Amino acid sequence: MPLADGALTGPVLVVGAGLLGTSIGLALRRHGLEVLLEDVNPQNLTIASGLGAGTAASDGARPQLVVVAVPPDHLPEAITQALECHEAVVTDVGSVKSAPLREVERRMGTGSLSRYVGSHPMAGSERSGPLAASAALFDGRPWAVTPHEGSDPGAVFLVDELVGLCGATPLRFTPDEHDQAVARTSHLPHLLAALVAARLTDAPSSHLALSGQGVRDVTRIAAGDPLLWLQIVTANSPALTALLGDVRDDVDRLLAAVRDGERGTIAAVLDRGVAGTAAIPGKHGGPAEPVGALFVAVPDHPGELARLLADAGQIGVNVEDLHIDHDPGRPVGLVELAVATDRVDFLKGALEARGWTTHR
Amino acid sequence: MPLADGALTGPVLVVGAGLLGTSIGLALRRHGLEVLLEDVNPQNLTIASGLGAGTAASDGARPQLVVVAVPPDHLPEAITQALECHEAVVTDVGSVKSAPLREVERRMGTGSLSRYVGSHPMAGSERSGPLAASAALFDGRPWAVTPHEGSDPGAVFLVDELVGLCGATPLRFTPDEHDQAVARTSHLPHLLAALVAARLTDAPSSHLALSGQGVRDVTRIAAGDPLLWLQIVTANSPALTALLGDVRDDVDRLLAAVRDGERGTIAAVLDRGVAGTAAIPGKHGGPAEPVGALFVAVPDHPGELARLLADAGQIGVNVEDLHIDHDPGRPVGLVELAVATDRVDFLKGALEARGWTTHR
Repeated sequence: MPLADGALTGPVLVVGAGLLGTSIGLALRRHGLEVLLEDVNPQNLTIASGLGAGTAASDGARPQLVVVAVPPDHLPEAITQALECHEAVVTDVGSVKSAPLREVERRMGTGSLSRYVGSHPMAGSERSGPLAASAALFDGRPWAVTPHEGSDPGAVFLVDELVGLCGATPLRFTPDEHDQAVARTSHLPHLLAALVAARLTDAPSSHLALSGQGVRDVTRIAAGDPLLWLQIVTANSPALTALLGDVRDDVDRLLAAVRDGERGTIAAVLDRGVAGTAAIPGKHGGPAEPVGALFVAVPDHPGELARLLADAGQIGVNVEDLHIDHDPGRPVGLVELAVATDRVDFLKGALEARGWTTHR
Repeated sequence: MPLADGALTGPVLVVGAGLLGTSIGLALRRHGLEVLLEDVNPQNLTIASGLGAGTAASDGARPQLVVVAVPPDHLPEAITQALECHEAVVTDVGSVKSAPLREVERRMGTGSLSRYVGSHPMAGSERSGPLAASAALFDGRPWAVTPHEGSDPGAVFLVDELVGLCGATPLRFTPDEHDQAVARTSHLPHLLAALVAARLTDAPSSHLALSGQGVRDVTRIAAGDPLLWLQIVTANSPALTALLGDVRDDVDRLLAAVRDGERGTIAAVLDRGVAGTAAIPGKHGGPAEPVGALFVAVPDHPGELARLLADAGQIGVNVEDLHIDHDPGRPVGLVELAVATDRVDFLKGALEARGWTTHR
């Protein structure tokens, strides 16, 4: 096992040929590495190998690296098995890092895990299964690499290599730091989005006609696979329990303040909300850049949005983000273009000169 | 005052030349109606009349309709004054309808309000002031019209006319129904988005590098003007207090379930979240249509997004929604296209044939 030189040359054994495992196989095959696949479901194996993600592993396989890509509930068992059956470096791509690590330590002893380094790609999971896989799934994404205290530096290097070959950017965290970070940036937002969405199920449907883009944005992620999220939330219980306790206290204070009209408390919540949105890093990991919004009325048929963006491109203004506002009543959508603050007025004038109806 | 024939012919007096008032003036001027403007701030008046939204009102003005467009805190006083000073029909465009109505009733007596009909356009408020105004602000938007029990039918008809001339679609609610509806679809989402965003201010900035599109979407509206939202939240205290009480109970149950690993309770929350996202009406007020996601890698410079959408347009697939995923690490954005479920595979194949890197 070439830990010393650190180069990932394969073979790589991928355990679990779902969305993430199959995508990793496809990404590594781009670079010509040998990829071996395992899955308890033979249909997944057939699809993944048919897509070109690798070949079914045989019993005597001697991989350089094992990537465990199974659902959160099955991580401890699959990581333990990979460490016991192979001399290889082992990583996993689960959404939670501490609880599985502790369970593997309990099973094997802390001294036996130098070859294990956890990791977690920040890649989409709205769909699942090998048919949804893509070699490009990780392109440009952050990918947390989370060594524990006993991880061999050579093993960490090899996992960094995996991340790079998949087109992603490795970011270093301890397992606990990672879990606290994603509890805040992913798991808590998911749960509160679900609570906001849940309140909509109580409403008469006529009330929901007043839904605007705001509630659509807030609740969008709550549509994600509830079985996967159940496992993620359960596995990250310590970090989420602490955060949910803070939120419960926040809601208690806010409830009393709204009931009693205590404006200072409500204002403090709103001000902290504004500060929180500004704390999210901007594009490409830099500080958040000031962006302004320009609204444009766009007829709702194929080609019109393209024509708008073609005009914006010719005008030379980069569109940082875009929202389409779905409104009842008529077949014209309002499109919100987010562009650098100092370009909004220029873009507005130039688009209107081309016949678009806009407002700020 | 031509209540009987119902046609809105003007003059229309707009009280408050901010974003909404000035936009209403501009929209009515498109149809040639005479618009008179009032504002306590002479600079707003100068800007609004300079933009062509109307002319400063003189003392002897005899409007057919008064539109009160002042911040929530000042609504009761301004509505009362409009009813006392003019023989006209009076409406307002505030975000909350019951509390201002009750306060006006307290000041004037319930018998004197037949000429008053509240209303509330569902139009953007991320910016404020007359410079942000636009004749197109209300195009295609829902606009709640909220008569009270004593409202004259002719007055209601005139407000519906106003809504139509502004390009919006009138939706009828009682004041209480309206406030309950927007508490659920707008005010509660705003407050919970602020609480999620507030939790980000506690985090080390390195943790926020793991922020994905999910937390950005959930927290986006929390960036809105905290002074305006303070007034909205305070004015809608009864409806929000009831909802926040429900949310507090939800968070309590969820906290206990996450702490104790009670999977059934967590699963029920997630399932209700999925159901809530499906309850939001689809485009143009119809039922939510099943849409699927296709991810496309797009180089981050002007024109590339336009080229993608031009290709989608030529392929003949209508893009229902679009998200741009901002990733640290490299200058390629991932664009998520939402299209009808049965068009995803077709679009994927056709885009790849044109050289785009996609995944589902």
